[in-house]
Amino acid sequence: MTSPTTTSLELSQSFRQQIDAALERFVVFDSDCPSTLREAIAYSLLAPGKRLRPQLVLMANQVCGGDIEAALPAAVAVEMIHAYSLVHDDLPAMDDDDLRRGRPTCHNKFDEATAILVGDALQARAFEVLATEVSPPAVAARCCAELAAAAGASALVGGQADDLSSQFFQARDEQHAVEQLELIHRRKTGALFRVSLRLGAIIAGAGEDQLAALDAYGENLGLAFQVTDDLLDVAGSENNVGKRLGKDNERGKTTYPAVLGIDNSRQRAADLIVGACEAIESFGEAAAPLRDLARFVGRRNK
Amino acid sequence: MTSPTTTSLELSQSFRQQIDAALERFVVFDSDCPSTLREAIAYSLLAPGKRLRPQLVLMANQVCGGDIEAALPAAVAVEMIHAYSLVHDDLPAMDDDDLRRGRPTCHNKFDEATAILVGDALQARAFEVLATEVSPPAVAARCCAELAAAAGASALVGGQADDLSSQFFQARDEQHAVEQLELIHRRKTGALFRVSLRLGAIIAGAGEDQLAALDAYGENLGLAFQVTDDLLDVAGSENNVGKRLGKDNERGKTTYPAVLGIDNSRQRAADLIVGACEAIESFGEAAAPLRDLARFVGRRNK
Repeated sequence: MTSPTTTSLELSQSFRQQIDAALERFVVFDSDCPSTLREAIAYSLLAPGKRLRPQLVLMANQVCGGDIEAALPAAVAVEMIHAYSLVHDDLPAMDDDDLRRGRPTCHNKFDEATAILVGDALQARAFEVLATEVSPPAVAARCCAELAAAAGASALVGGQADDLSSQFFQARDEQHAVEQLELIHRRKTGALFRVSLRLGAIIAGAGEDQLAALDAYGENLGLAFQVTDDLLDVAGSENNVGKRLGKDNERGKTTYPAVLGIDNSRQRAADLIVGACEAIESFGEAAAPLRDLARFVGRRNK
Repeated sequence: MTSPTTTSLELSQSFRQQIDAALERFVVFDSDCPSTLREAIAYSLLAPGKRLRPQLVLMANQVCGGDIEAALPAAVAVEMIHAYSLVHDDLPAMDDDDLRRGRPTCHNKFDEATAILVGDALQARAFEVLATEVSPPAVAARCCAELAAAAGASALVGGQADDLSSQFFQARDEQHAVEQLELIHRRKTGALFRVSLRLGAIIAGAGEDQLAALDAYGENLGLAFQVTDDLLDVAGSENNVGKRLGKDNERGKTTYPAVLGIDNSRQRAADLIVGACEAIESFGEAAAPLRDLARFVGRRNK
């Protein structure tokens, strides 16, 4: 694999700055929002992070010839859904995590009730930002529909439900175990990756062919991300990852390394990254930032 | 006060049937939704209930000359938001309730993680139903924006956050205590009542005058509902109410009876009902169902 080009890195850096500024702009609530709740929402949404999903929104928007300013509300909306899902996943009744992005999780810093409400408020705010800031309104409605499906019981929430119960599943064999794992992660991670790309593209006025290519890229990227996440849990350092490691194993969760071993998991991640890059070949040079981002995801476990 | 007319009762009955049928129709998830999650969502959404908020959607729609079929998705969406908020409010970290609508609460029947996910999924589904089933798309986007604001940190979620911390507030005097209480309930109950009416009216193509009248009706009705709810907690029977009573007092929550006493709370509810009915006088006879519903709310504490 080649290194990211300077241009593409600079582009990514500029995206990050625009995303962080937009998150600050849209997280503002009026005086009717109780102050502790507002503080906890900002703590969770503005926490340091890779902003992968909003970057996908902007990159897909650019590769389809869109206008970044018009896509920023969608970038903010997907990050709000992502942030809410992390806050709820970390709760004692779910993954019971104390540390997230190197800081105390929301329910640790504040309390459990506040963390539940932070997630609920962030989800509502995501749809509010989409519905009010994306134009024309017909595109806003389509974006709401796509994001709601990706955040719902058949995607993000369903994936988390299955992930929580995955310690109980008995696979017949390795092939079956990998299929079960990918079903979970296609929903838990893949759906939000995919919809991020779709929203950016839809706002740019993309056609069905472009959406299909981005779907395939997002599906591969989402799975690759999950494989490298599982690998980091067994092989990463807590300082690098920003959360406590080895918990998957303690919980008896089914992971890629547990099913395939570490070497084969690394190979699987590499194959998925290649698949992601191939899916967007038709965009040519314009897709360089998306390819670089895929390679960045692939390098997380090195 | 006069009794509800037969016609209006029949209308309300017909609304209830259409609402229940629509809830069943829209709660369906595809096969990607894990089966326990699907079961828990249906358990929570289709639980017996008064369906007050969806009735408000349909009644506001009718009084503004709309078409019931077009308003049903919005009726379903507000009930989904309401049902999700009940599931989350009942959680151990929040109000810690065992009984809801006469049955075990969601986290009791299933488990805590499932209850958190049920709420999350219902919220997403509410926006999906609005965004995909309301037409034209510009109206769908406006409905999403209105519902998201009413469900968010400055309204529904903010009201619940303040309600949880209300046991700590020190009022200077009775007047101040009532103001604080009404601030909480304007958000916690009033916002969803108000947006229910607004969605029905917007889908019917209502003008600003009509929306303003319905806003005032909804604000009064929401507060009246909360006063009677507080009264039921001290004076109702568990069989009638379907949940364990006296919990407000145990928790030291500020309630209308605690601040105003029982008789003055009853008077406050009656005044609010009168205020609600007066707000919609301009609709004339067409507003009979809304007036009857307000009187029904007023009679809850008798």
